[in-house]
Amino acid sequence: MSVITLLSDFGSKDPYVAEMKAVILSINSEASVVDITHEVDKFNIRMGAFILASATPYFPPNTVHVAVVDPGVGTKRRSIIVETKRGFYVGPDNGLLMLAAQKEGIIKVYHIDNPKYMLSRVSRTFHGRDIFAPAAAHLAAGTGPSEFGPAIQDYVFPEFVKPQAREGEVVGEVLHIDDFGNIVSNISVEDLQSEGFHKGDSLLVRLGDKTLILQFCSAYGEVPDGTALALVGSSDFIEVALNQGSASKTFKAEVGEPFRISGAASN
Amino acid sequence: MSVITLLSDFGSKDPYVAEMKAVILSINSEASVVDITHEVDKFNIRMGAFILASATPYFPPNTVHVAVVDPGVGTKRRSIIVETKRGFYVGPDNGLLMLAAQKEGIIKVYHIDNPKYMLSRVSRTFHGRDIFAPAAAHLAAGTGPSEFGPAIQDYVFPEFVKPQAREGEVVGEVLHIDDFGNIVSNISVEDLQSEGFHKGDSLLVRLGDKTLILQFCSAYGEVPDGTALALVGSSDFIEVALNQGSASKTFKAEVGEPFRISGAASN
Amino acid sequence: MSVITLLSDFGSKDPYVAEMKAVILSINSEASVVDITHEVDKFNIRMGAFILASATPYFPPNTVHVAVVDPGVGTKRRSIIVETKRGFYVGPDNGLLMLAAQKEGIIKVYHIDNPKYMLSRVSRTFHGRDIFAPAAAHLAAGTGPSEFGPAIQDYVFPEFVKPQAREGEVVGEVLHIDDFGNIVSNISVEDLQSEGFHKGDSLLVRLGDKTLILQFCSAYGEVPDGTALALVGSSDFIEVALNQGSASKTFKAEVGEPFRISGAASN
Repeated sequence: MSVITLLSDFGSKDPYVAEMKAVILSINSEASVVDITHEVDKFNIRMGAFILASATPYFPPNTVHVAVVDPGVGTKRRSIIVETKRGFYVGPDNGLLMLAAQKEGIIKVYHIDNPKYMLSRVSRTFHGRDIFAPAAAHLAAGTGPSEFGPAIQDYVFPEFVKPQAREGEVVGEVLHIDDFGNIVSNISVEDLQSEGFHKGDSLLVRLGDKTLILQFCSAYGEVPDGTALALVGSSDFIEVALNQGSASKTFKAEVGEPFRISGAASN
Repeated sequence: MSVITLLSDFGSKDPYVAEMKAVILSINSEASVVDITHEVDKFNIRMGAFILASATPYFPPNTVHVAVVDPGVGTKRRSIIVETKRGFYVGPDNGLLMLAAQKEGIIKVYHIDNPKYMLSRVSRTFHGRDIFAPAAAHLAAGTGPSEFGPAIQDYVFPEFVKPQAREGEVVGEVLHIDDFGNIVSNISVEDLQSEGFHKGDSLLVRLGDKTLILQFCSAYGEVPDGTALALVGSSDFIEVALNQGSASKTFKAEVGEPFRISGAASN
Repeated sequence: MSVITLLSDFGSKDPYVAEMKAVILSINSEASVVDITHEVDKFNIRMGAFILASATPYFPPNTVHVAVVDPGVGTKRRSIIVETKRGFYVGPDNGLLMLAAQKEGIIKVYHIDNPKYMLSRVSRTFHGRDIFAPAAAHLAAGTGPSEFGPAIQDYVFPEFVKPQAREGEVVGEVLHIDDFGNIVSNISVEDLQSEGFHKGDSLLVRLGDKTLILQFCSAYGEVPDGTALALVGSSDFIEVALNQGSASKTFKAEVGEPFRISGAASN
């Protein structure tokens, strides 16, 4: 049984996700379809890329991942298949797939242009249903990626900001705010360790214009209820959390604002 | 493997949807259950009918569709199975199933009254779990629809408003507002073409008391970001959208209000 | 084919639920995974326990239920498997599993401590993915529960409040408010019958500081639209509802507040 995952910014109210699943099952009735999420903020390619890259490492090899955050649908942006060392990614050529694909190791990228593997009538508003879903269903059924169209080199590769260390401070930004209100940065535990910060230390965290002194913990429950802490989240990035509370409500953080860490003793 | 779909106004917080799936899997462990949506506005039969009719054409033949928007549960309203040329619909006899079933071609409608195919104890508040889910599981396992009860002729057939053309204007209404804020009308591209309007034209669209002059486009990205446009949506109805924005927030449209289209030059 | 259910307070925006499904399918590709809900209020063990106990009786025997409402993740709280007369429950040792497990009849409780059945790297923030999901996948594949760790006796058993009858009044509390706004109490129909109240009676219901005189009905549609009523909900508890409306909006009820029933004639 082959696994196909879906990620989008479609929400759960409309028939769009079901239409994609219907197309997949019509072509490949053996596929097992798993939703990653459909609650990506509308048109937010960066958020979609982060969630996709967090989830896909846990899926079995040869999984086909379909992702649709696609403001350019119906324009000249291309539809692509990315073949990696672990599986396949299908979606728009706008960078959405590349953070996850790069972690797995990109083998080749193909431009989907063979109408044989599309719905007979392709709309210009919904390639998720008309192009990506059929491509995923055929890939999962064993069709080779080169059947869908030519390999390309000039695919879009987004430049997501990387954290930088300067003068004892690691400077990153807020990557994601999860449903618990945890404020997830793009700073990895390795980024901190290479600056000499370790679990148990007190950290000075600057979030936008707020300055927090936080214990660098291993688990939420190491501080009293309602207390803020820093820890390594389940996606391996440093996050600010509140034990049994919402850090984002308390600190009013927003995605994209600066997230800076230094030693509390250094100020 | 047979496919059973579920649509309801239950939301995703409560155990209700899971109870329906549990009943289905207890009777028919081979069924593949796909959610269409459970976010239909409470008791809004018209919205449920529209979403159902949008999604079901993409499913494989012989799919069994269960839909539950059921304000009359536990009263005299009947439980029915609709046999169509493509598959089956199971739900309340309140019109919910008929827009989708009619598109597929109705063969016969049956009143479910055989207790053999219901849960042993039928509540008067949740026929989705106690009557519709078991019926769907048995249908998908091969039980003929006439086993469930007698064929009936006097089922409820809702009169959804159809658009009308008068004096060069096509007069319909807002059918649905999707999660992107696209304002979907009940006017088809054929309705427009028969009045002489074609892609590329400027259209004068009157939404409630607002008057908009919009380009009739093929894709969202044909106009600059934040600009309004008219186009044929993925359900084949004319919609007003905002490229990378929310038309419903900008124009404060509501389901049910008039949606009128004429040529921009005609005013 | 074995069934594994998931319940959590994770919401639907983040990759967490998909990561659990990915781990399950990587270990046991034949498992059929069904969501109960992921919209439990954050950290609300009582609400999670109620929803779990409502849904699980409808699943097939030998289903494995995984539930994660887990404020103590990463602290000393244990991970457990509960073996019941119908199947298995996997989750934190904080009471979440016990209302459902008790209804089925508890056979034994095991402390999961065998690293052989965990992910190779266990985080201290996400045992749902790293411990519970692998345990469920292995259980569903036939591994015996005693393989995961020692049987324990001192598991957490929450004392959920039970309704009490005094001087002709049954005193319980609000257990849940569902997505329709129905106000569900912890008072069963048996609790009412043993005090001499039956369907068709007028009931005097006191909800917090509001006093309502309601008909004890069998179906929502027995009263006019917008009218309040009392009835036995689909989880077999007494609830206050509004026909085609939201009782919780009208009466501003909150989970945990007193819910008292007496005969309308008695006042």
